[in-house]
Amino acid sequence: MGKRYTMPYEVAYYDGDITKKMTLPSMLAVVIRTSEEQSAMLGRSAEYIGSLGLGWVITNYEITINRLPRVGEKIDITTEAMSYNKYFCYRNFWIHDEAGNECVLIKSTFVLMNKENRKMGSVSEEIIAPYESEKIKKIQRSEKIEKVENSQSHQYSVRYFDIDGNQHVNNAIYFNWLLDVLGYDFLSTHQPVHVNVKFDKEVEYGHVVESHYDIVEGEAELKTRHEIRIGDQLYCEANIRWQEI
Amino acid sequence: MGKRYTMPYEVAYYDGDITKKMTLPSMLAVVIRTSEEQSAMLGRSAEYIGSLGLGWVITNYEITINRLPRVGEKIDITTEAMSYNKYFCYRNFWIHDEAGNECVLIKSTFVLMNKENRKMGSVSEEIIAPYESEKIKKIQRSEKIEKVENSQSHQYSVRYFDIDGNQHVNNAIYFNWLLDVLGYDFLSTHQPVHVNVKFDKEVEYGHVVESHYDIVEGEAELKTRHEIRIGDQLYCEANIRWQEI
Repeated sequence: MGKRYTMPYEVAYYDGDITKKMTLPSMLAVVIRTSEEQSAMLGRSAEYIGSLGLGWVITNYEITINRLPRVGEKIDITTEAMSYNKYFCYRNFWIHDEAGNECVLIKSTFVLMNKENRKMGSVSEEIIAPYESEKIKKIQRSEKIEKVENSQSHQYSVRYFDIDGNQHVNNAIYFNWLLDVLGYDFLSTHQPVHVNVKFDKEVEYGHVVESHYDIVEGEAELKTRHEIRIGDQLYCEANIRWQEI
Repeated sequence: MGKRYTMPYEVAYYDGDITKKMTLPSMLAVVIRTSEEQSAMLGRSAEYIGSLGLGWVITNYEITINRLPRVGEKIDITTEAMSYNKYFCYRNFWIHDEAGNECVLIKSTFVLMNKENRKMGSVSEEIIAPYESEKIKKIQRSEKIEKVENSQSHQYSVRYFDIDGNQHVNNAIYFNWLLDVLGYDFLSTHQPVHVNVKFDKEVEYGHVVESHYDIVEGEAELKTRHEIRIGDQLYCEANIRWQEI
């Protein structure tokens, strides 16, 4: 098993939506802070990785939500680098409330990207050893993402403040584009219970993305399907299951 | 003098722009958290004010920046309700670095808004007493804001996550619209030294705002002038002085 790291966090008013529950964009931004802190503590900061000409890129999240933390609530965010193979690193995040209940589980896949040619690099012992995660042969496949069929869409321009210190669009911003299309009436009356999202290509400053979606109402569940596209190029895809508030 | 309250804060990667300095939208969001925490501690939380049918609204900020905090830096944010008259409450915020240097001073004006009719309410002893701020007769006028002349503009749609638990657009979001229009080349090579911003009307969900600006290059200084408008209605105006990085 890998080393675990836990960061306490108090959910701020600006992390909440109109229902005073933590938004997915805020949750993902804060969660990634935990892995950045752990990496820095282990001498594997973004600066160190950058000095090797590499950078971490997240390729997908699978998020299971028992309940969303509320504004003002004190939570613990725990992370562990679970396992890795030649190209992929699998990292989990857990959010627990003060009573120790698991609110959220996030499974993620990280890859190393060569900053010059934007190609995937293999995971070296040098980089990964301090995390003490398990070396595996198998490539873990995440749940298949269903395509959008009869889509509606909105356009979003990448804004200057969407770009972070790593020079690319912060992953959390994609959730803003993915979800905003669903609109006030839907978002204020539903909350996500399961999210499966895959990042295919990196959106850059100057891009105008189209956020496509459709809503599938099954007997037992409500599901939305999403694609972030520019023209016929796919940048990000997601399936989200919802429950009524 | 009023009661002071200080909140320690560590600048997160998501608070920073590509230059790894804290952005104005993040700074304002975090700063307001300090006054919310103080109010809650004094038994004057947003919920309490809401139970009286009222809500705080910020009408302007005057921000003086010696230097912007950096990602990873530990800062102290201090706030004090300085003084008040019949309708206006004047509150200061200071950001200090670990060495005790003043990085930022923010002077702000708050008013109480009746939540039903959106009219300004007078400041009662009941609400203001715990802050121990000085009662004054005078209305403090902030520096005059110059109008935009030959403006360019971009449109921004209000997004679901721009609306906070108080049901309106978080003040910090206006800074995103105000600044984003200046573009990558300008923003990555300049930093603000003085900001004077006035909020005239409340933007709501569903609105599409136009962010107008012009750039005035003087001999000694570089200044940008800003207006957030919808049609011929003015919602927000600002003047910002800059220096090259």
